[in-house]
Amino acid sequence: MRAAIMREKKIVTGDLQTPAPEAGEVLVKTLACGICGSDLHALEHFDQFTSYGGEGFAGGLDKSRDLVMGHEFCAEILDYGPGPAPANRLAVGSRVCAVPMLMRDSAGMTVGYSNEVPGGYGEQMLLTEALLLPVPNGLPDDHAAMTEPMAVGLHAVEKARLTPDDVPLVIGCGPVGLAVIGALKLKGVGPIIAADFSPARRALAETMGADVVVDPARMSPYDSWRSAAAASEQGKRAPVNPLSGERTLPEGVYFECVGVPGVIDQMMVGAERGSRFVIVGVCMESDPIRPMMGIIKELNLQFVLGYTPEEFASTLHHIAEGEIPTAPLITGHVGVDGVAQAFQDLKNPEAHAKIIVEPWR
Amino acid sequence: MRAAIMREKKIVTGDLQTPAPEAGEVLVKTLACGICGSDLHALEHFDQFTSYGGEGFAGGLDKSRDLVMGHEFCAEILDYGPGPAPANRLAVGSRVCAVPMLMRDSAGMTVGYSNEVPGGYGEQMLLTEALLLPVPNGLPDDHAAMTEPMAVGLHAVEKARLTPDDVPLVIGCGPVGLAVIGALKLKGVGPIIAADFSPARRALAETMGADVVVDPARMSPYDSWRSAAAASEQGKRAPVNPLSGERTLPEGVYFECVGVPGVIDQMMVGAERGSRFVIVGVCMESDPIRPMMGIIKELNLQFVLGYTPEEFASTLHHIAEGEIPTAPLITGHVGVDGVAQAFQDLKNPEAHAKIIVEPWR
Repeated sequence: MRAAIMREKKIVTGDLQTPAPEAGEVLVKTLACGICGSDLHALEHFDQFTSYGGEGFAGGLDKSRDLVMGHEFCAEILDYGPGPAPANRLAVGSRVCAVPMLMRDSAGMTVGYSNEVPGGYGEQMLLTEALLLPVPNGLPDDHAAMTEPMAVGLHAVEKARLTPDDVPLVIGCGPVGLAVIGALKLKGVGPIIAADFSPARRALAETMGADVVVDPARMSPYDSWRSAAAASEQGKRAPVNPLSGERTLPEGVYFECVGVPGVIDQMMVGAERGSRFVIVGVCMESDPIRPMMGIIKELNLQFVLGYTPEEFASTLHHIAEGEIPTAPLITGHVGVDGVAQAFQDLKNPEAHAKIIVEPWR
Repeated sequence: MRAAIMREKKIVTGDLQTPAPEAGEVLVKTLACGICGSDLHALEHFDQFTSYGGEGFAGGLDKSRDLVMGHEFCAEILDYGPGPAPANRLAVGSRVCAVPMLMRDSAGMTVGYSNEVPGGYGEQMLLTEALLLPVPNGLPDDHAAMTEPMAVGLHAVEKARLTPDDVPLVIGCGPVGLAVIGALKLKGVGPIIAADFSPARRALAETMGADVVVDPARMSPYDSWRSAAAASEQGKRAPVNPLSGERTLPEGVYFECVGVPGVIDQMMVGAERGSRFVIVGVCMESDPIRPMMGIIKELNLQFVLGYTPEEFASTLHHIAEGEIPTAPLITGHVGVDGVAQAFQDLKNPEAHAKIIVEPWR
């Protein structure tokens, strides 16, 4: 089978042996697979990416061996491994999504970050049968493939412990920030304030449901948040400070969706006292913060990762029902031969948000 | 009046004009005032200490001017400022504690971090009448002066959102860590695991109520926590992981009470997945963390500062009732002339925990 392979720190096209499903596993044809920012990180910073050892989803990766990445997929069932069929087995030909985990020998391998099995940048994959979710009729393959990245946004919003008195701010409107905005909108939380240097990304943020978008080069996102928060319904019912007689601001919940060193510190400087941060952006590097700034403002930092299987399934449902828009985010489609160039193209936020690999294209 | 003054980065003894109380203010005689780790920081890292600007309790300090520190005090009322007396005015001669704030011109100055008014390392101070709390009869001056540092521990524990399923770990058993242990014990949370390199501090931790004490040079505090947590009542009722069939650990709540760069990162490496940190130690410097470690483990970091007026009052009550021990922490008493040496002596954790300044000694 053909695949885009990470080999010696480059993405190359090559032929690999088609994998054989074991008991409990299923061979699928990859219909569509999104390129994730984590994959760009993995290509550029492989040593950092794997340095978190057995703790993470990329533990045990060997850079001297081939790696077929791709964990945001929609696929079609081709064949089942040996063993008795469960009563509710999906028919061959069914389209499916799945949490990108292959359970084997009571351990989990991440599909897309494993040297043992290929991810979605190849024509075929192995998945765990018990994790398969049928794609509702009529949902296009590339939209179904958006389940994984959108589930990241849903999970981040679930972990934010939002109350009706909070006002959210989204820092960074790449795919992660856009997924957070979609999930906030779905939850009915607002006004949603969102900041990104890129005009194209700000336009996408508005499409996804942001109420106020800010260019940080022109105006402080934190000041914009303060204005919007003060004018919001939450702001109008916020308590009055007995000393100053002034109305306080609603509680800020700031989503860090950039993942670059320095952003958390900037947010700590800009934040209103008592704010909560949800750190969704994946920063692989060491990142200096000033704890004193957190202490003075009594900030709370919640780091989040991934999603639960329930959140993943519910995201697929919401996408199929049109409750989380995905069409605006999909800015390109490539075949296996186009993956290397797509990794380059994704560095330009004006040109792209999400590029979908269609290995059979 | 005589005072230990911070002048040109040194502590010197000198004479200052006795301050005059304005309306709503009271002149007090300082009976006892604890030396806080923050004051040691302020002396050694003054520029960092004041670099957080108007945001903090030390905003606006001018290093070219005299500063009389000391914000952990018990005092005796000497005289009131002009204006009508409130109905519940305390008699001259009453002993009082107070949140170290002087409200003047609708702004708050921190008593002990102000160039305008002296703190508790001088013979007399000004306080805001409305903030005074009478010291219950029989509570010695130096124990009453422990209200402020112990309130820091009470506040940290309140901000920890503890549930009956959590097991706490206290990293660092200086006065802040010991105050946290006292507050945890008061709340009935346990087992309490506590770590410090100093044998004397570990002994104090046990006296304050720690159930397990660890020397990090000999054993990982995180492994000790895992053992104690697994064996605890919470551990016995923790859910079983359906994949591995093994019992999970209770949720860890780790109190950072060291305030030195690198500790938060170490804790992130050692922590169990899903743990919550309460950052109580005051780290003035830049501190590199690896956000990826927080993300992989979905850690939560709650930075905390100070206490509410209600927590302060309730701490004084608990100390007077003998519900929070303070005697073991008090390891020395000095007069105004002894403050400079006490700042040196406090660097040795084997020798001292809390030194009390008695300016009239």
